[in-house]
Amino acid sequence: MTTTNPFATATSWVEGATGSLYDLDNLPYGIFSDRDTTRKIGVRIGDFVLDVTAAAQATNQPFADVLDSDRLNDFMASGKDVWHQVRTWLTTLLSDESRAAVVVLRPLTDVTLHLPFEVADYVDYYASMDHATNVGKMFRPDGDALMPNWRHLPVGYHGRAGSIVVSGTDIHRPAGQRKAPDQPAPTFGPCQRLDIEAELGFVVGRAVPFGERVGTDEFADTVFGVCGVNDWSARDIQSWEYVPLGPNLAKSFATSISAWITPLDALATAKVPTPEQEPEVVSYLVENPPMGYDIAVEVELNGEVVSQPPYAAMYWSPAQMLAHMTVNGASLRVGDFFASGTISGPEKQQCGSFLELSWGGSEPFTASGQTRTFLEDGDEVVLRYTAPGARRRIALGEVRGKILHTI
Amino acid sequence: MTTTNPFATATSWVEGATGSLYDLDNLPYGIFSDRDTTRKIGVRIGDFVLDVTAAAQATNQPFADVLDSDRLNDFMASGKDVWHQVRTWLTTLLSDESRAAVVVLRPLTDVTLHLPFEVADYVDYYASMDHATNVGKMFRPDGDALMPNWRHLPVGYHGRAGSIVVSGTDIHRPAGQRKAPDQPAPTFGPCQRLDIEAELGFVVGRAVPFGERVGTDEFADTVFGVCGVNDWSARDIQSWEYVPLGPNLAKSFATSISAWITPLDALATAKVPTPEQEPEVVSYLVENPPMGYDIAVEVELNGEVVSQPPYAAMYWSPAQMLAHMTVNGASLRVGDFFASGTISGPEKQQCGSFLELSWGGSEPFTASGQTRTFLEDGDEVVLRYTAPGARRRIALGEVRGKILHTI
Repeated sequence: MTTTNPFATATSWVEGATGSLYDLDNLPYGIFSDRDTTRKIGVRIGDFVLDVTAAAQATNQPFADVLDSDRLNDFMASGKDVWHQVRTWLTTLLSDESRAAVVVLRPLTDVTLHLPFEVADYVDYYASMDHATNVGKMFRPDGDALMPNWRHLPVGYHGRAGSIVVSGTDIHRPAGQRKAPDQPAPTFGPCQRLDIEAELGFVVGRAVPFGERVGTDEFADTVFGVCGVNDWSARDIQSWEYVPLGPNLAKSFATSISAWITPLDALATAKVPTPEQEPEVVSYLVENPPMGYDIAVEVELNGEVVSQPPYAAMYWSPAQMLAHMTVNGASLRVGDFFASGTISGPEKQQCGSFLELSWGGSEPFTASGQTRTFLEDGDEVVLRYTAPGARRRIALGEVRGKILHTI
Repeated sequence: MTTTNPFATATSWVEGATGSLYDLDNLPYGIFSDRDTTRKIGVRIGDFVLDVTAAAQATNQPFADVLDSDRLNDFMASGKDVWHQVRTWLTTLLSDESRAAVVVLRPLTDVTLHLPFEVADYVDYYASMDHATNVGKMFRPDGDALMPNWRHLPVGYHGRAGSIVVSGTDIHRPAGQRKAPDQPAPTFGPCQRLDIEAELGFVVGRAVPFGERVGTDEFADTVFGVCGVNDWSARDIQSWEYVPLGPNLAKSFATSISAWITPLDALATAKVPTPEQEPEVVSYLVENPPMGYDIAVEVELNGEVVSQPPYAAMYWSPAQMLAHMTVNGASLRVGDFFASGTISGPEKQQCGSFLELSWGGSEPFTASGQTRTFLEDGDEVVLRYTAPGARRRIALGEVRGKILHTI
């Protein structure tokens, strides 16, 4: 664990919190509004949201200013010491019933959750060897499944930051150009192979100037927290557009993230080494050893779990992805965001995309008694994430999205 | 022209402005500071900067609030009518000497110029057929130079918005992984094939919600202005990393833009049809006819012009690039930025990259009496842009950058 937890045995006075997936050892942050529509910072406990902005003001906390905001960015920018101070203070508030008077709790059902932070740049990686191999086999059947660079660097690309939306936002099916190999020319229309990508995302809370490389040992000083990600993907648009500059419109219409950002401290007990990396990596990617997270993902399609990708199977570690991002001298801004790429394990039922679950549409799978390949209008996808917490399992925020017709 | 110009024959009372490249028919906007270090909006006239923020306040203009800013974003967000009102007002101020009393002019040599707007998302296109063909021949010698999708859609990718810096910013040589085909494994170190990309950039001044496609006929309502761009590129890093997800670290260390944003109205007389597009494009890309700009670019290396790329040779039009960006339902934010990709004409001396000028390093060229291929530490590159204005040639802002050693 990165910090000593003085509350390891404390329990919360909040009804239903103890033993839930959102117990005292979790405490993810988000942005909520209630009837007066003002957006404020909240922390989740059980099925309630504590109004963090109000509690900090009512008790004159030294960090009340950075918590008086409609986004997490100012809080994140205040640095790791403040992140710890706020978590300690919230743990005290929620475990010491004598302090309940300063706390405003709202049932989750009474609030609206918003995008938790203002996104600066968004980099999406491709860190699962199983996913990269599967996609390589399907997109490039005549070539090597895994590219020569894949084991040497975390391959990634920049996504569209302005298209990142909060869980619960409806997703309109994108339109675009696509061309099957046997068609003479492209056609334009609604995407016919709309897919999910179940990923994990990392929110940068520290600005770093140009030219200062962030080492793999600086991950916990730099990353504020973790969230769920569904990087919606239009496979037919992607396969036509992506050579040579990578995916663009196939991804840029929407990326959903969970409403809750889970602090790294809540995941300290979920850290596990990555699978062995072979060959050895170059100097700036060395981490002794590379550490991932034992986070279990569930992909739910219209209420039925269709896949269970294991984050522990990811080849590249989050600290390696972070180090890669700045090794060329690029700066970091508070609100920069990077995601793991699709989480897939070695088994079919561990794949984080329908592309893989249905093997490019050629091997339909069954969900709710129906034969399925890609997403249909009206489908609802929920990604759920759980991890071993300090006491028992904790949950990251879910990522929910419903597919609507093309506008 | 998009608007009638009541000042077509007016002259400016500002010393040296008449007949210069920054005469009354130009009037680009930027952000400057002088001794008191406060950033304000300025407009360039001759070799002076007019303090737009101060002049609007002193004369109680209805748009004074949006001009009281350290970035152009609020002004851009106020819409096309205000863009025209401000340009008309400034033209009056600068042509009617009786109004000189309300004007604060600073010599350019006395001010510092800053990044003119806060960049939201950055999309870089690949709109020159000559450039795409040249790069294809060098990067994929065994395949087709031009990919099958290239004539059907403007190929592009997202760049790193946080790495966009203003002209005059020094550029540290990036470090990264590279592997020549004959090497067994990648090495890590300073980029050995550091390059420029001379481009033109377009600044979005209108927010558009998810799902509302922007048509090619909405270009002038949506784009606030144009600037010069140098998309610095690390060719050795790029050729190793770019398959299959496109360039990432090879570009993300820095992109320089000019300090001045030239309004579309100043370029109305520079509009020219693009080269013929064959085959016919799909519906959302139709523009009758596709219009580019007759902008002449000069690439200067250490004071010597080494290339003169013609923007008029670009295949895809700016309106087509804009329409492509939102056809999938992606939103636009004020401050979104897209660039043309390298501007290259059919002749060797019209190439906008050293990669092409030196044919991948195999055919060195001569500059200042030296044999050259890629950028060396200490090199200074200046990109200059001119276009036919309403009276005579006008200049867009230069893009200047000096290469420093790897940090």
